[in-house]
Amino acid sequence: MKILGIDPGIGICGFGLIDGTKLLDCGVITTPVRTPVPGRLAELYDGLMEIFDSAKPDVVSVEKLFFTKNITTGISVAEARGIVLLVAAKKQVPVFEYTPNEIKKTLTGYGSAKKGQIQEMVKIHLGLENRPKPDDAADALAAAITHSLMHKF
Amino acid sequence: MKILGIDPGIGICGFGLIDGTKLLDCGVITTPVRTPVPGRLAELYDGLMEIFDSAKPDVVSVEKLFFTKNITTGISVAEARGIVLLVAAKKQVPVFEYTPNEIKKTLTGYGSAKKGQIQEMVKIHLGLENRPKPDDAADALAAAITHSLMHKF
Repeated sequence: MKILGIDPGIGICGFGLIDGTKLLDCGVITTPVRTPVPGRLAELYDGLMEIFDSAKPDVVSVEKLFFTKNITTGISVAEARGIVLLVAAKKQVPVFEYTPNEIKKTLTGYGSAKKGQIQEMVKIHLGLENRPKPDDAADALAAAITHSLMHKF
Repeated sequence: MKILGIDPGIGICGFGLIDGTKLLDCGVITTPVRTPVPGRLAELYDGLMEIFDSAKPDVVSVEKLFFTKNITTGISVAEARGIVLLVAAKKQVPVFEYTPNEIKKTLTGYGSAKKGQIQEMVKIHLGLENRPKPDDAADALAAAITHSLMHKF
């Protein structure tokens, strides 16, 4: 089963495609800071459409949103997240959502794990030589792995 | 100049099309509560595409988001807002955004106006016999009128 993890964002949107413990692809979609938001969302939409077309995922796994720190960032992440969910619906791929705590707990065993620990577990789980870069791609892979592990039970 | 005001929402998304002080069209797009969010966003996308196709607006006016009360509602509104901005970009229609305070102040003269007062001013501005219904369509018209009045100066 091919799982596409996505870490939504308007400036950088991470994605990671896995099948079991095999890394198939990962990377980021970036949009230019100077372009107005609607245009950036359209670029994100087009970029995601291409990724779905080539990745042909069976499911999508996305982190659930919680706004604790920065509300302005939160709004733009939610707008980008709307585009991710829209593309999944257009491509008829079911979406699963996990809270940040669920992702941390599934990967490391405890819900207050640090970013570096998550990335280390992503590396080990997928048998990589190095931690995946950039962070947004690693976060997307963490979401994909969480679904892979949760799905087993 | 045809201005399309939009009041984003996943359950009910209001729209109102005006040209100066003339009401051309208004209404709402609704999506079924039982459908998963991605599917609802796809219905919203399709509905907005149809409205843009028939309305052929010159500009779009949308309320800027502020999360003060309900964060969960805020997230879903922001996701719906992402779809609105995406459709505007796809249709190459420029988007103008106004804060709730700017809308209240432009329509009534003061920023702490109540919903009923806004609706009354929408009615008067467009020369209607009754306040436009439902609330979401009235809010969308308020955003459109705000752009119409701000644009004059």
